[in-house]
Amino acid sequence: MNDVTTLLKSHRSIRKFSDQPVDQETINTIVACGQAAASSSNGQATTVIQINDTDSRQKLAELAGNQAYIASAGAFLVFCADLNRSAIACEQQGGELSPGMTEQFIIATVDVALFAQNCVIAAESRGLGICYIGALRNNPAEVTTLLELPQNVYPVFGLCIGYPEQDPEIKPRLPLDAVLMQDKYNAESITPAITAYDEHLRAYYLSRTGGKKDSCWSEEMLTLVGKERRAHMREFLHAQGFTLR
Amino acid sequence: MNDVTTLLKSHRSIRKFSDQPVDQETINTIVACGQAAASSSNGQATTVIQINDTDSRQKLAELAGNQAYIASAGAFLVFCADLNRSAIACEQQGGELSPGMTEQFIIATVDVALFAQNCVIAAESRGLGICYIGALRNNPAEVTTLLELPQNVYPVFGLCIGYPEQDPEIKPRLPLDAVLMQDKYNAESITPAITAYDEHLRAYYLSRTGGKKDSCWSEEMLTLVGKERRAHMREFLHAQGFTLR
Repeated sequence: MNDVTTLLKSHRSIRKFSDQPVDQETINTIVACGQAAASSSNGQATTVIQINDTDSRQKLAELAGNQAYIASAGAFLVFCADLNRSAIACEQQGGELSPGMTEQFIIATVDVALFAQNCVIAAESRGLGICYIGALRNNPAEVTTLLELPQNVYPVFGLCIGYPEQDPEIKPRLPLDAVLMQDKYNAESITPAITAYDEHLRAYYLSRTGGKKDSCWSEEMLTLVGKERRAHMREFLHAQGFTLR
Repeated sequence: MNDVTTLLKSHRSIRKFSDQPVDQETINTIVACGQAAASSSNGQATTVIQINDTDSRQKLAELAGNQAYIASAGAFLVFCADLNRSAIACEQQGGELSPGMTEQFIIATVDVALFAQNCVIAAESRGLGICYIGALRNNPAEVTTLLELPQNVYPVFGLCIGYPEQDPEIKPRLPLDAVLMQDKYNAESITPAITAYDEHLRAYYLSRTGGKKDSCWSEEMLTLVGKERRAHMREFLHAQGFTLR
């Protein structure tokens, strides 16, 4: 196992940070590492907005379900899928954005995630901790207004970065053979994998919380996919130009 | 600059691979590194299908615009966004998938991309080269049939992995200050950044091709966002259960 493998496998989300700020040079290096990730047809559909203003941080923390570490982390970045820049480039050549295509939405969203994960690895390699904030999508229209995002740009998620003041355990994952299949989708592997993982995750939660958290993966999935979640997303995206046609 | 930063910044896509196969233990380690990436609400919505069968490789290469290296790379993985597994888990608890939500589509697509980028970093840290294959979305229905993907699963992209037999230059990116903004979206930075980058990229192409390729970013964006691209994606996704409501 090489050092990079060790680094990648040691990831856990950090939700408690020290007061130590993250200097701008470090942020610049981290974001430059993000830029180095692959990008579909070189579209580079990622824009990162670094939030320094205290009021904006506080407001974003509230909009994202009162997650206080958004305000207190050394740095907070908002990762936006940005087709505005390529639309302007296209116009400079006498063209026009073909608006709202589902495919371009996928391209931009994937670009952002690849970019962000490179930032995460760069940050963690420096001893920094991170936490992705998907809850920016709780109130995406308010986030969009606050950050003055133009049409064809949407906030995909936020990222807290800072020096960790906690050392949580690494969360166990699904068994590898449930996730890596050979040649075809192996539908028969699913149920035994869920059973095994439910047991594993329950034991992990019980041990980590001294018996207080008695839950498992399939129970968590009731909430994740068994409910209408962020049902405003379609309408928000439409208004932002992503009509997903 | 630490070693990981150097590794991240040295990425370039590889499209010519040696005959040397990538052994299964290496693939397992790479995919385990993917599993370690953050996952929204621990949904783990990624399934990787490793394609070993020669005929399937050939077929996928044809479906993805005749990219021969899909057949010849040491390994080829198809990264799928998978809500089928969490739906089954949910059913085991007496629940039911709330189908077709746009938000769950975003969650699953982002999960896949974070997972895949960890795989890429793990592969590149071992001297392997990679190339993402977005062109699997040229014919997603045929890919879905070939891999026997169930409802609520879709192929997001493929990934070639192998030992490089070429050493291409690193492609220059947009200026950092066009991509990293402070506190608000800086609309005024866009046009100057495009002008600067157009010039930079044109010089890079001319030098790399001995004067043959005379193009720039804004010209490329005419093709990427100025045309209806993969206009079948919406209908394909709907048929697969992702109605994006």
